[in-house]
Amino acid sequence: MAGDRDQPGAVSFHRRELPRDTCVSFASPRGKKIFTRALLKGTMRNYFALAEQFHTQQEPAYCGLATLVMVLNAMAIDPGRVWKGVWRWFSEELLDCCKDIELVKREGIDLDEFARLARCNGAMCTITTGAEVSLDEFREVVLGNMREKGAEPCDSEPCCSFLCVNYDRGVLGQTGTGHFSPVAGYNEEEDLLLVLDVARFKYPPHWVKLSLLHDAMKGERGFALLSPGTGEQGEPVLGCQGGCALRGFDRQGRPSCSRCGG
Amino acid sequence: MAGDRDQPGAVSFHRRELPRDTCVSFASPRGKKIFTRALLKGTMRNYFALAEQFHTQQEPAYCGLATLVMVLNAMAIDPGRVWKGVWRWFSEELLDCCKDIELVKREGIDLDEFARLARCNGAMCTITTGAEVSLDEFREVVLGNMREKGAEPCDSEPCCSFLCVNYDRGVLGQTGTGHFSPVAGYNEEEDLLLVLDVARFKYPPHWVKLSLLHDAMKGERGFALLSPGTGEQGEPVLGCQGGCALRGFDRQGRPSCSRCGG
Repeated sequence: MAGDRDQPGAVSFHRRELPRDTCVSFASPRGKKIFTRALLKGTMRNYFALAEQFHTQQEPAYCGLATLVMVLNAMAIDPGRVWKGVWRWFSEELLDCCKDIELVKREGIDLDEFARLARCNGAMCTITTGAEVSLDEFREVVLGNMREKGAEPCDSEPCCSFLCVNYDRGVLGQTGTGHFSPVAGYNEEEDLLLVLDVARFKYPPHWVKLSLLHDAMKGERGFALLSPGTGEQGEPVLGCQGGCALRGFDRQGRPSCSRCGG
Repeated sequence: MAGDRDQPGAVSFHRRELPRDTCVSFASPRGKKIFTRALLKGTMRNYFALAEQFHTQQEPAYCGLATLVMVLNAMAIDPGRVWKGVWRWFSEELLDCCKDIELVKREGIDLDEFARLARCNGAMCTITTGAEVSLDEFREVVLGNMREKGAEPCDSEPCCSFLCVNYDRGVLGQTGTGHFSPVAGYNEEEDLLLVLDVARFKYPPHWVKLSLLHDAMKGERGFALLSPGTGEQGEPVLGCQGGCALRGFDRQGRPSCSRCGG
């Protein structure tokens, strides 16, 4: 890394160009066509709620926190504490539980830590590594979440979730490595996913092949499905009130040690 | 104003409900229909570029700066200086020229100051008060900017602009008074404008009657049209390089005093 206000003349960048063979920019003529077609086909269910909350990660290693901020706000979860002025609102600096935010600033978070932070802030969250699902299974998950349900009542709980991906940018032909972002839509005809990339200073939002994104979820990387958390009576669960309510979860959100929480 | 981290128990809010008789929420079923119809009718030209940059104002009085941040980034103007890390990118704290940002924090900016900041940061900007245009004239401006031009070459310069409004929230039935936000689309059949409200912690983006927004641009309030600035050879104009290049503009962007710039 080089270049900031204290180092005039150092290398700096005004955005990066998207790799043309793997990514289609959201606002390009072709991107608009892919969007319109997917909208008319009814596979953009969460797009509007996510578009309302599209957000730029505030630090180079905050992609996970920024992704979480978008989805927590998209689900209208009340953080239960004030952000600024009189307003309760999720912003990265409010996600200062579960992992020291100064450490997050240096090394980011992994998928397990992402899930922990989501649960601690009022969401239900399941995570799946790329290796755990076949391409077809991943496509089923995508369709189940992107397809408009119409007016019929939902018989599954939760009836819909927000999909976030933790992937290796390099597989998409982009510069960089591990990254998080929400997925906001699916064009089934072309098998393309809309990634609302939270590093907006680097890449615009873009459409990418579902199979390529599946390839990019290697090793411990994968995807998370988030929905609003509810209590035993179905009431919304408020986020942690000034401190981390729980420490140390297993994959199902259960504390891994009931005594020390670690 | 009341309630922050230092005042536990003070009044705070998790969003406000949109007034139902004047505003239609972007992500509501009716909002989605209005959007889809406008998209198919080709009156959402700038939507995609603005949606990419949708942003939350970072201080209660930063609505003008946040609106400018959205539009400058949507126009892909290079600020010519680093935001964070290695990235050149507009954020409110970079708009610290023309008016002391601490003063902006207390009192915000007015439409003239908005235009000055826009020009100082690489945009062309014209402003018009509500009183200067009839409802029909305002509608013409909107249509000229929201309608897709297709593949035909543009013979006007600039061929398209970004519309920002400075209005009185009270006229829309919302709490609060003076506010800025970009307008991202128009549904001609229902005469509705899409306001991407930068106070996202308060109201979601919404559709509102064009006539009501015209009513809300009273007194010194009005609208601004922004397009990328170009130099004498048509080259892009970089924003100010670490300081305010110009001080004191008239409505046409000319320094009001050529000697002192004030």
